[in-house]
Amino acid sequence: MTHSYQTGRLNLPFTGICTFAKKPYVEDWAAIDADAAILGAPFDAGTQYRAGARFGPRGVREASTLFSFGHAGAYDHEDDATYLGSDVRIVDIGDADIVHTDTIQSHANIETGVRAILAAGALPVVIGGDHSVNIPALRAFDDQGDIHVLQIDAHLDFVDERHGVRVGHGNPMRRAAELPFVTGLTQIGIRNVSSTARDGYEDARRMGSDILSVRQSRALGTQALAERIPAGARVYITLDIDAFCPSIAPGTGTPSHGGFLYYEVLELLQAVAQRHEVVGIDLVEVAPDYDPTGSTTILAAQVLMNLLGFIFHARSECGNR
Amino acid sequence: MTHSYQTGRLNLPFTGICTFAKKPYVEDWAAIDADAAILGAPFDAGTQYRAGARFGPRGVREASTLFSFGHAGAYDHEDDATYLGSDVRIVDIGDADIVHTDTIQSHANIETGVRAILAAGALPVVIGGDHSVNIPALRAFDDQGDIHVLQIDAHLDFVDERHGVRVGHGNPMRRAAELPFVTGLTQIGIRNVSSTARDGYEDARRMGSDILSVRQSRALGTQALAERIPAGARVYITLDIDAFCPSIAPGTGTPSHGGFLYYEVLELLQAVAQRHEVVGIDLVEVAPDYDPTGSTTILAAQVLMNLLGFIFHARSECGNR
Amino acid sequence: MTHSYQTGRLNLPFTGICTFAKKPYVEDWAAIDADAAILGAPFDAGTQYRAGARFGPRGVREASTLFSFGHAGAYDHEDDATYLGSDVRIVDIGDADIVHTDTIQSHANIETGVRAILAAGALPVVIGGDHSVNIPALRAFDDQGDIHVLQIDAHLDFVDERHGVRVGHGNPMRRAAELPFVTGLTQIGIRNVSSTARDGYEDARRMGSDILSVRQSRALGTQALAERIPAGARVYITLDIDAFCPSIAPGTGTPSHGGFLYYEVLELLQAVAQRHEVVGIDLVEVAPDYDPTGSTTILAAQVLMNLLGFIFHARSECGNR
Amino acid sequence: MTHSYQTGRLNLPFTGICTFAKKPYVEDWAAIDADAAILGAPFDAGTQYRAGARFGPRGVREASTLFSFGHAGAYDHEDDATYLGSDVRIVDIGDADIVHTDTIQSHANIETGVRAILAAGALPVVIGGDHSVNIPALRAFDDQGDIHVLQIDAHLDFVDERHGVRVGHGNPMRRAAELPFVTGLTQIGIRNVSSTARDGYEDARRMGSDILSVRQSRALGTQALAERIPAGARVYITLDIDAFCPSIAPGTGTPSHGGFLYYEVLELLQAVAQRHEVVGIDLVEVAPDYDPTGSTTILAAQVLMNLLGFIFHARSECGNR
Amino acid sequence: MTHSYQTGRLNLPFTGICTFAKKPYVEDWAAIDADAAILGAPFDAGTQYRAGARFGPRGVREASTLFSFGHAGAYDHEDDATYLGSDVRIVDIGDADIVHTDTIQSHANIETGVRAILAAGALPVVIGGDHSVNIPALRAFDDQGDIHVLQIDAHLDFVDERHGVRVGHGNPMRRAAELPFVTGLTQIGIRNVSSTARDGYEDARRMGSDILSVRQSRALGTQALAERIPAGARVYITLDIDAFCPSIAPGTGTPSHGGFLYYEVLELLQAVAQRHEVVGIDLVEVAPDYDPTGSTTILAAQVLMNLLGFIFHARSECGNR
Amino acid sequence: MTHSYQTGRLNLPFTGICTFAKKPYVEDWAAIDADAAILGAPFDAGTQYRAGARFGPRGVREASTLFSFGHAGAYDHEDDATYLGSDVRIVDIGDADIVHTDTIQSHANIETGVRAILAAGALPVVIGGDHSVNIPALRAFDDQGDIHVLQIDAHLDFVDERHGVRVGHGNPMRRAAELPFVTGLTQIGIRNVSSTARDGYEDARRMGSDILSVRQSRALGTQALAERIPAGARVYITLDIDAFCPSIAPGTGTPSHGGFLYYEVLELLQAVAQRHEVVGIDLVEVAPDYDPTGSTTILAAQVLMNLLGFIFHARSECGNR
Repeated sequence: MTHSYQTGRLNLPFTGICTFAKKPYVEDWAAIDADAAILGAPFDAGTQYRAGARFGPRGVREASTLFSFGHAGAYDHEDDATYLGSDVRIVDIGDADIVHTDTIQSHANIETGVRAILAAGALPVVIGGDHSVNIPALRAFDDQGDIHVLQIDAHLDFVDERHGVRVGHGNPMRRAAELPFVTGLTQIGIRNVSSTARDGYEDARRMGSDILSVRQSRALGTQALAERIPAGARVYITLDIDAFCPSIAPGTGTPSHGGFLYYEVLELLQAVAQRHEVVGIDLVEVAPDYDPTGSTTILAAQVLMNLLGFIFHARSECGNR
Repeated sequence: MTHSYQTGRLNLPFTGICTFAKKPYVEDWAAIDADAAILGAPFDAGTQYRAGARFGPRGVREASTLFSFGHAGAYDHEDDATYLGSDVRIVDIGDADIVHTDTIQSHANIETGVRAILAAGALPVVIGGDHSVNIPALRAFDDQGDIHVLQIDAHLDFVDERHGVRVGHGNPMRRAAELPFVTGLTQIGIRNVSSTARDGYEDARRMGSDILSVRQSRALGTQALAERIPAGARVYITLDIDAFCPSIAPGTGTPSHGGFLYYEVLELLQAVAQRHEVVGIDLVEVAPDYDPTGSTTILAAQVLMNLLGFIFHARSECGNR
Repeated sequence: MTHSYQTGRLNLPFTGICTFAKKPYVEDWAAIDADAAILGAPFDAGTQYRAGARFGPRGVREASTLFSFGHAGAYDHEDDATYLGSDVRIVDIGDADIVHTDTIQSHANIETGVRAILAAGALPVVIGGDHSVNIPALRAFDDQGDIHVLQIDAHLDFVDERHGVRVGHGNPMRRAAELPFVTGLTQIGIRNVSSTARDGYEDARRMGSDILSVRQSRALGTQALAERIPAGARVYITLDIDAFCPSIAPGTGTPSHGGFLYYEVLELLQAVAQRHEVVGIDLVEVAPDYDPTGSTTILAAQVLMNLLGFIFHARSECGNR
Repeated sequence: MTHSYQTGRLNLPFTGICTFAKKPYVEDWAAIDADAAILGAPFDAGTQYRAGARFGPRGVREASTLFSFGHAGAYDHEDDATYLGSDVRIVDIGDADIVHTDTIQSHANIETGVRAILAAGALPVVIGGDHSVNIPALRAFDDQGDIHVLQIDAHLDFVDERHGVRVGHGNPMRRAAELPFVTGLTQIGIRNVSSTARDGYEDARRMGSDILSVRQSRALGTQALAERIPAGARVYITLDIDAFCPSIAPGTGTPSHGGFLYYEVLELLQAVAQRHEVVGIDLVEVAPDYDPTGSTTILAAQVLMNLLGFIFHARSECGNR
Repeated sequence: MTHSYQTGRLNLPFTGICTFAKKPYVEDWAAIDADAAILGAPFDAGTQYRAGARFGPRGVREASTLFSFGHAGAYDHEDDATYLGSDVRIVDIGDADIVHTDTIQSHANIETGVRAILAAGALPVVIGGDHSVNIPALRAFDDQGDIHVLQIDAHLDFVDERHGVRVGHGNPMRRAAELPFVTGLTQIGIRNVSSTARDGYEDARRMGSDILSVRQSRALGTQALAERIPAGARVYITLDIDAFCPSIAPGTGTPSHGGFLYYEVLELLQAVAQRHEVVGIDLVEVAPDYDPTGSTTILAAQVLMNLLGFIFHARSECGNR
Repeated sequence: MTHSYQTGRLNLPFTGICTFAKKPYVEDWAAIDADAAILGAPFDAGTQYRAGARFGPRGVREASTLFSFGHAGAYDHEDDATYLGSDVRIVDIGDADIVHTDTIQSHANIETGVRAILAAGALPVVIGGDHSVNIPALRAFDDQGDIHVLQIDAHLDFVDERHGVRVGHGNPMRRAAELPFVTGLTQIGIRNVSSTARDGYEDARRMGSDILSVRQSRALGTQALAERIPAGARVYITLDIDAFCPSIAPGTGTPSHGGFLYYEVLELLQAVAQRHEVVGIDLVEVAPDYDPTGSTTILAAQVLMNLLGFIFHARSECGNR
């Protein structure tokens, strides 16, 4: 009968310090005690067109307050379910330290953060930053057993090396495919011209990638699409916001028309969360200053909140961890 | 052969004083003589995230000039019909007086405006302001017979009371359901987490609401959706612009992804206008300054113009008033 | 094995002078030697609501750099094809000289540019400017044999004359229909009220136009839609960016909700390029300053790049020129 | 003791229809009965860089509501004076009809409006539009006796003819100097490179212009500056918003750094209003969409309101009309 | 030799959680242990034109990170002083809880926060929100001894009551003057027309206010201006960001041209901090979303950081507390 | 009598390809034949707050078209001089190739460009990019004899090393001071807190810097300020756009209030150009996307155009080359 609104604060979205979803801030990375932990990775020196993803963590945190009404969990009338109730403990551990001009050190700091989360037994949720932050994030999984990478993105990001660049935002999936504990990649939403040339596609397929465009994904439908991921695989999800149509995600560095609409991604994520153990998440390439309406950061926050809800709902239903 | 363009002014959209659709301004609320009257309700102190809906009336009026080319009515080639010909008399009665810091008085002034329109036998069309302006607008119908409320919105807005708040923008549908002359509510487009918790949904259903999400509405299709409204009901339409996808309506206070696209709402409105007597309209939560492209105000104006066209076309066809 | 990335410059999109797709600039219009030539037509005095299309050529050129990664052609994994390889020679010939306050002279200068391109045997690609620039562009085809005009647009643009105006952006399709060498028009995407009144529609149909709304086009599907164009016709494509939904093309003068989504237009253009000889293109009404996200210019560039790819791919496949 | 706030409406700035300063709208130009009349001249086809001044009248009207608190006049504590009390009757007569693509007709319509105001014995206040609207505005004074033109502007606007252009926004002061009833020009604020070349400056001086830069004006000080205008002259003031520093007036087509600050212009206008009969005003080149902060339109409205206050205060003090 | 940069994090401005100046967040208002405490007061229902000041605290916190380089204090080479060294303990206690539609409760919550800070013996620094938040902030000083109020503002804010409104953003200085422990007001920067009419000025002077415009302040100079405040007075500073010129502070609800430039206010604040005990601060009316450049929030943060530096530098120099 | 406007094109600012000032583009860096050459250096990975300076060259080029009216030189009525006549040959050599994630290589490419300009005997004018691009630009002068560096900037940029960073945008002046051929630095405009701590100031003074704040510079006046530079020195000018007040230059990464106004910098540059041989220029930190009004890029272009005018005017007057 009584819930949090009857006591304490009304806590409207526009009030208060912006941690992710207004969750507790844990400054000491040795003291993480949670089911999931948010890490900001505000690095954008890996971008090839517009920068600004360094403000991604800050922007997504701000937008996440819109979904933090202070209820005891988020009731979804379509699913008739309450997500992220008080039993799910989420913390925000702040940002990895970024060193301008130094990609190597910045990436190392991100890797340190993800390792700290994993060491605490929590689900790492990395908010980029550009897609290159996926490289150190995945590296941190080297003692976590085999994983399958689900990439939702406009771009293949499978460039091996060009002009010496191996860890920019055009390279992460190639780097992922090279990791011994990555058993395969499912790359969804890939479309139009980008920094990956034909040989990159050939390499990807040869190294075990399953590549699907937006139209190919639509033709399959959510269930068939989800079934492309090997059964039983433990899944790491890397979500580039430019996978979405620029109509809802214009605030990004390299927009590409013809992207996914909201429910297409949401339902895929829900299906994956129901069928697989999700072991890690990154959401990258949100550049808030290119979207004065705030739609992009709101989308990122809304997707992350729902995905976390799906994951922990599935865990509680199935005890599958 | 000759029409208004041959004589008088060319009257391009960017010229002239911005009343709604450049219709006559009637300052004296005792002298309304029209089929429909526009009332601005620039109140936004009921918002829980971004404000700015106070500029909704001004923004929608400005955008409406784009659809005011000065023809003798608006020809629609898809319907092969001319809407809003010279036989439909629309006036703009300006805005209700708003008193900052005083929600009660501001709402009372809005109610006064709607009562004036009803007293003149005209269709009230209220442009918000936040969704709380629906509360005084509906109150003005207490001597108008039974009505059914059709809400098109992202949010259920069915909070009873929290921290003493009963007339904010999270409360209007609860307040509507309590009115003796409101026989039922159809709430369409409702999705994702918001200020209404699980108990609000339960209350709504118990008090006679029919709640449908965007995906549920799509699954039904326009006709089945329209048939959810009881046959013969006299309908009041309250349209929150955030019912639409943020891709076309980012200029609002609490955007929610996964909303309706344009034709989905347009066709529902057309079906309702054909099947029911529409007795009142409000369109709320347009916050123009959050959309520098102007898409949101243009959408609001385009929808309103078409809805008015449908209503008066139906009236002239059926003589159903 | 080696491609342009191994040698020379990395040439990231944000570097370098903004010609269209970073293609060579040919200042001397008597020295065009190319398969296609881009001409900017930055004239916007023909607009009836928001101006700003004068910055269309500049904006589209800037956005086109995003698609100029320097590969030897653009690989499309969905089509498994490489478009716009080094065999396709595209040049940018800069802009027609515009004389403010003087529509006649400005139009004449645009016509001169298109004639120069045609004289060189290249495909003219005109970037507007408002839709009135289609008028001089088409005039330049008076010695090129019969053509069919495919218009993709929200508005019919078929006003004959009003207040003396015959060459504004509401008139081009009427002017086109009057040309002896224009054998017919297919007008797709037309919707809602605009500057063309009922009599304009009647005139259009009488003069041989096939008019289809967005919803009518969707009901037909891409193939049936493409088949509305007479078989064997040599086609001139005029694409008004407001044919698209404002969600992806808000940066335009007279947005109209309910427009096409990306693939709808892309697939139609691909079908047309495969079935017909495309003899000229204009893309108009991009007003970049009304879209701070850049989505509109990116859309324009992405569509143009793909359309050019389709055209020259079809030419190489079929030898149909 | 009682004033308008005690009765009637609170009338906050964000409420109500946007006429200039919420003054009465007079649609019938034969029925003007006022001391001053506002005419919008939303023509911007005369611009040489950014357009958008067509929305100047609309933007300045909107901003003027900020200064329309509903007091019985505006009390200025620095002057200890109440300006624009109920004895000063100001009306808004809407906009001149603009015909796109047709500079001649558009200018003629502006001239008609100014003539109507003059015929009514009211002070014409024209809100542009680009600076070319000064040309028809001044033409309307051909039966009003001799006048001196005070131009406050960044640019000399003294081009005679180029490529046939004689009535663009680079020409008005040349056209003014040619008028037999214009006895001289004082051109203040002129700086940096623009469309007027050296010969234009020489022509201007030969035809009787007094040209002063911002720095020269500052060195003189307000009083000496005001004294450059011949004693006893009846003065027409043409104020290009780009006379101001872009820091406060970025919303214009051709910004030029190094412009005037607020009090510099305000005090000059006050001095001129005290020393001369002001017979007409235009304020031009406000392009609101280039200033998302609204500073530029607020500046234009604030300057106009104060200037009108100074003029009618001087008239009431001196009976000098 | 070693400073904070050699150890720990580089901590670039764009990283990390946005508390004010990245200072510790103290959620428990009973546990404040600091020299100064920041309280957000995101209430903007008291505004009469543009809202949006509810995002003031969030915006100022974000901007303050630009001045948080992690040095051991901020070295100022002009003063050859290091401000805000590690000896000055500043904390951020988050925001007062705001209840939409309820001005009374929202104000009460702000008062509670200020009382908590005062109870802890810390300097309260309130970030608005609109200027009405000054009303509860000052009320909290009822047991703190006599204070003098220094207002720096464009507007007098001395309206007694209108339409029942007594606690809107046009009323705070009247409410302050009524408080028994407020011994006088110095009101600086006041200019142009606003919601305070002539009688408000007369009341203010009668109740002990010293009113100075920007020009009057400039004529006096910093020292003479500072000396207008009674010697020995304990001073509460209320700084409305619209005191500044819109050129540097456009992000506010009711901009007024002719405001102060940066050093004018900075030097006044420095002089006051040197001559008086500053007992409380509020900085109000920052509406970040109206300034896409971020200049306004950066100004607010820069002024606050410097003012705090001056205050604690003076305290350490003089032991004057 | 005849000038360029009588023949050829009117060439309005908004037409044509955007090279700097619409000057010829020289793609082959071995074929530079000019008095001055523009090089873009779109590198911004050295920034510590907002990125976006990578679009500086593109933005400044676009804005420079406003000052390219096609006259035979730019007539300045204040100086009664025509600057940059046809005798001054300026070319644009495009941008240095930038390699994302690789600061070393990107800087090396910039150095290559400057060396190419110097080898051609032309004046190098580098448009950044962030201030770190000054590091390779100065390195290219190692065979050019002794130079004095005039920095106009808000920040000292004299950090030696922190977390390994030695070539970020906080380091360039330290790196400059270390160069054997740099005989001294004059650092003007330095103010407020930044990344340089107290020890950086001490190092700078010890290594021969003359540091002056904005207020100190104002107190001296232009002539005395210019005389701080050693007589006879050959001067390299590095101008960080944030030296200017954010009121006119908000489009930058780390704005700092209290900066220079336009004429202060202009007159200093004019004095320096008259008294010294200027051997190189860079203008950095313009981040166009943070200023939707365009004021910042217009300022950068206006200052560069004038500076070039002053330099070549001085050369022609004095034959001092």
